Amino acid sequence: MSTTISPLAPKTTPTMPAIAGVRLATAAAGIRYQGRTDVMLAVFDEAASVAGVFTRSKCPSAPVEWCRARIKGGQARALVVNSGNANAFTGKSGREACAFTAKLTAGAVGCKMTEVFLASTGVIGEPLPAQALDGVMARLVADATDEGYVDAAGAIMTTDTFPKLATASARLGGTTVTINGFAKGAGMIAPDMATMLAFVFTDAPIAAPALQTLLREGVVDTFNAVTIDGDTSTSDTLLAFATGAARGAPRIARANDPRLVPFRKAFNAVLADLAEQVARDGEGARKLVEIVVEGAVSKLSARRVALSIANSPLVKTAIAGEDANWGRVVMAVGKAGEPADRDRLSIWFGGIRVAHKGARDPDYDEAAVSAAMQKPEITLKVALGLGKGRDRVLTCDLTKEYVAINGDYRS
Amino acid sequence: MSTTISPLAPKTTPTMPAIAGVRLATAAAGIRYQGRTDVMLAVFDEAASVAGVFTRSKCPSAPVEWCRARIKGGQARALVVNSGNANAFTGKSGREACAFTAKLTAGAVGCKMTEVFLASTGVIGEPLPAQALDGVMARLVADATDEGYVDAAGAIMTTDTFPKLATASARLGGTTVTINGFAKGAGMIAPDMATMLAFVFTDAPIAAPALQTLLREGVVDTFNAVTIDGDTSTSDTLLAFATGAARGAPRIARANDPRLVPFRKAFNAVLADLAEQVARDGEGARKLVEIVVEGAVSKLSARRVALSIANSPLVKTAIAGEDANWGRVVMAVGKAGEPADRDRLSIWFGGIRVAHKGARDPDYDEAAVSAAMQKPEITLKVALGLGKGRDRVLTCDLTKEYVAINGDYRS
Repeated sequence: MSTTISPLAPKTTPTMPAIAGVRLATAAAGIRYQGRTDVMLAVFDEAASVAGVFTRSKCPSAPVEWCRARIKGGQARALVVNSGNANAFTGKSGREACAFTAKLTAGAVGCKMTEVFLASTGVIGEPLPAQALDGVMARLVADATDEGYVDAAGAIMTTDTFPKLATASARLGGTTVTINGFAKGAGMIAPDMATMLAFVFTDAPIAAPALQTLLREGVVDTFNAVTIDGDTSTSDTLLAFATGAARGAPRIARANDPRLVPFRKAFNAVLADLAEQVARDGEGARKLVEIVVEGAVSKLSARRVALSIANSPLVKTAIAGEDANWGRVVMAVGKAGEPADRDRLSIWFGGIRVAHKGARDPDYDEAAVSAAMQKPEITLKVALGLGKGRDRVLTCDLTKEYVAINGDYRS
Repeated sequence: MSTTISPLAPKTTPTMPAIAGVRLATAAAGIRYQGRTDVMLAVFDEAASVAGVFTRSKCPSAPVEWCRARIKGGQARALVVNSGNANAFTGKSGREACAFTAKLTAGAVGCKMTEVFLASTGVIGEPLPAQALDGVMARLVADATDEGYVDAAGAIMTTDTFPKLATASARLGGTTVTINGFAKGAGMIAPDMATMLAFVFTDAPIAAPALQTLLREGVVDTFNAVTIDGDTSTSDTLLAFATGAARGAPRIARANDPRLVPFRKAFNAVLADLAEQVARDGEGARKLVEIVVEGAVSKLSARRVALSIANSPLVKTAIAGEDANWGRVVMAVGKAGEPADRDRLSIWFGGIRVAHKGARDPDYDEAAVSAAMQKPEITLKVALGLGKGRDRVLTCDLTKEYVAINGDYRS
């Protein structure tokens, strides 16, 4: 947890309303950090529908394997998340730590072990001292309150510089339902510190399979469209819980139910808000960068070109230097391996066209571009001129602070 | 061109012997830099066999397109290379600059335009002021000498901190033949050739198709096994020229001619030496890092895992911080998308096993690992425990200096 808040942090922390059926608590278990909370518990008064998406790493953490094996059950009574230790690459002891934590929680909450979901974030490869949770679990259950979101978001931070929270409401049938979410992550994808974890809660009565579809579709243009450094974590976990406690709301069994349209919009807005906050807290970031690619042969092709640009160290360092170095954008388009024709390519920085149809735009005003590059939020647009495929990803710049943060973390 | 030489630079510059049939010269044409040479000419007294491999970028530079269109002719009489301007993304004016330079050179040398090969390196997107070559071409041709290699290697440098040269000799039939090479490249370096220009010359009489096969096979474990930042240039060019002027050597028509075995070994050694020097001059590099992956399901799979590790910003920053952070290696293995089993994975830093079969090696000596990490050359080995696939790539660490160099380059 850094002492300096990212200059790109949102100006205010949202006020998080209560969600019927969800209570949260935090504690300082001393797993790794001293003088701060490092564990959070969410308790569902009755079994909530649960859905999840996880890292595609071939070396996932023990909690990811735990959740993946239990997500098809579709029911959750508790969620336990710790920071400071990722419980990844911990072999048999990692699996045992998961079982220990689940059993402890199930006993305290009064539910089955299979209804307990787990996530961990922090250092990889160190055994998780799960027994530290034994001393705090009874109080976590006793303290849990429906006002606990901001504290919960704080307890799961590692190199994050601010807690990431979002809330929205939507009409479902004749009832207003609420969606709350929080996330952690600062190097989207990085074992030692910035594994992305996100949790979303709603009182809407949505069956687990429908919630799973909503979540799977919702991440495409939100969490899956953010990159800090192109490194994929062993621990990425996004879980959604629906308590169904909203009075009078219709029960939704299928994701294509037309009554879900406003809910889906609000749900995706919460995911997008949290994902953008992750980019805003990119390690060492001083610029939030939106990469827009249009004119590609397909959306997928546009996504690949956008990610090639967003993950290019040379593009990211140029932006850190406030240099509209579109030559490096050309390079990143060229290396993406997607259809592209140099002589049709145009590039904009901050809305100003700097390159057009395969050559420097002779008319662009260097002073205007320079002014645009000095802003904390920059849009970089590339038009490929081949088709109608369009996509957008968010990233941040690559600064000396990123190197400092990641060169010193473990020591 | 930096004023501080990389600490990883070779201690000495090799003495480059003459190669019969090749003469070189350099000049200061003032294309971009002041007070230094920025153009080199190689002249072949008689038509030399020529072979080339180029960037796979979809947005290649004008000289790459020029060479690619003419390489099948198989004959070269001249090579002109400039630094300071890549003549990339320069549209029609870029093609015109190539034609102008080739025509100028052909006139001065007395050959066909199609026998002139070109390469450019430097800023992307600025028109190349090829007319600047007009003032120096006659003197270049007049000055060309068979001792010009070191000067030529200096003239093509951009952010390089030292000239990169290598030489070897081999028996071909009853004759000793020589191979000289030089290269430039320090950033925007990734397999598929990197912003990397390299030129190799030999007096061996090898037909162009055989030379092309030698070159294509030779880059696999040399230039294509080096990555600095995963960014692929618009300009990567590797050309090989064989004058055939070695007296008494047999003419070789096919790459699988058994008489070529010693030559191939020496040729590949020159390529490997130059490629390693590129890694040693990685922008901001303080550590040369060899990544070895074994136990993969195939060599290709091992290569992909090795590149995933080598291109990971988190692995590279950890190495810059002299931190044997094997958790990040696990992450990079996991994200490679190749077959891997966490519970079979073992990891060594500097020959010391730090992780074994899915968990921290309980016996490793932190002090010994720490000492290994302080060395300027580090080998990081990963055993996947699945098969017999093995591969090796070279890279360097990611330092604050990389960010400084690339945040300020254009301004």
